Amino acid sequence: MSSDQDFSLDPRLAADTVYLRDDKLSRLLMMNDARYYWLVLVPRRSGASELHDLAPAERARLIEEAAHVGAVLKRLTGCKKINTGALGNIVRQLHMHVVARFETDPAWPGPVWGHSPREPFAPELLELRIAELLDRL
Amino acid sequence: MSSDQDFSLDPRLAADTVYLRDDKLSRLLMMNDARYYWLVLVPRRSGASELHDLAPAERARLIEEAAHVGAVLKRLTGCKKINTGALGNIVRQLHMHVVARFETDPAWPGPVWGHSPREPFAPELLELRIAELLDRL
Repeated sequence: MSSDQDFSLDPRLAADTVYLRDDKLSRLLMMNDARYYWLVLVPRRSGASELHDLAPAERARLIEEAAHVGAVLKRLTGCKKINTGALGNIVRQLHMHVVARFETDPAWPGPVWGHSPREPFAPELLELRIAELLDRL
Repeated sequence: MSSDQDFSLDPRLAADTVYLRDDKLSRLLMMNDARYYWLVLVPRRSGASELHDLAPAERARLIEEAAHVGAVLKRLTGCKKINTGALGNIVRQLHMHVVARFETDPAWPGPVWGHSPREPFAPELLELRIAELLDRL
């Protein structure tokens, strides 16, 4: 999958997340919200906003990357359900959320998107969570 | 893609939607909510709840089917954004929503899921919408 030199991460996504790593297609981010295990995949394709803006092979790759991190989150957390979504009503750059959901979480059974302001990790807990995820993903 | 004789549609999904057609992998449904252009793809795979329950070729097919109907909805409606999501917090059977979103719609910019009870079409308008979609999809 060729790289896209023109890709740059939307500044609002950058402000809400921390960088984990670059997968083959996507930049893998973690939402800085201590209430959730919440990952975000951003295909490194400049100008992509909708799934249909990607090539078929890129879509197949994106769904593989999302399914992989979803399966890892489910094993790691024992959550009730994985929620996967590409909305983009506020940030237009194509990005796919993968969130581990529990019946005890604040937004259950509704979606996490738009539910309430995020609650950032304390710095030391942020480092622990990042290390935990990078070890398992 | 082999058929799955054991597949049957979840009765809650059946109650909220109308049948449009069977694609190669998924049953294509329309949410019976007159406020939105809102489609639902249900892979005809019994027991599948998460994206990672599908085989890679099935995931690739699902995302192609979702991207196709999303592109058609965008062309047809001139909407601002397509929202795509697989949540399943209430109905566990794997299903993927594809919704045309407008800045003027009731839930904007939040998600449609969990926002408000659906408002079914009047019968004659339901038939018109089904015909319009089957003609374009």
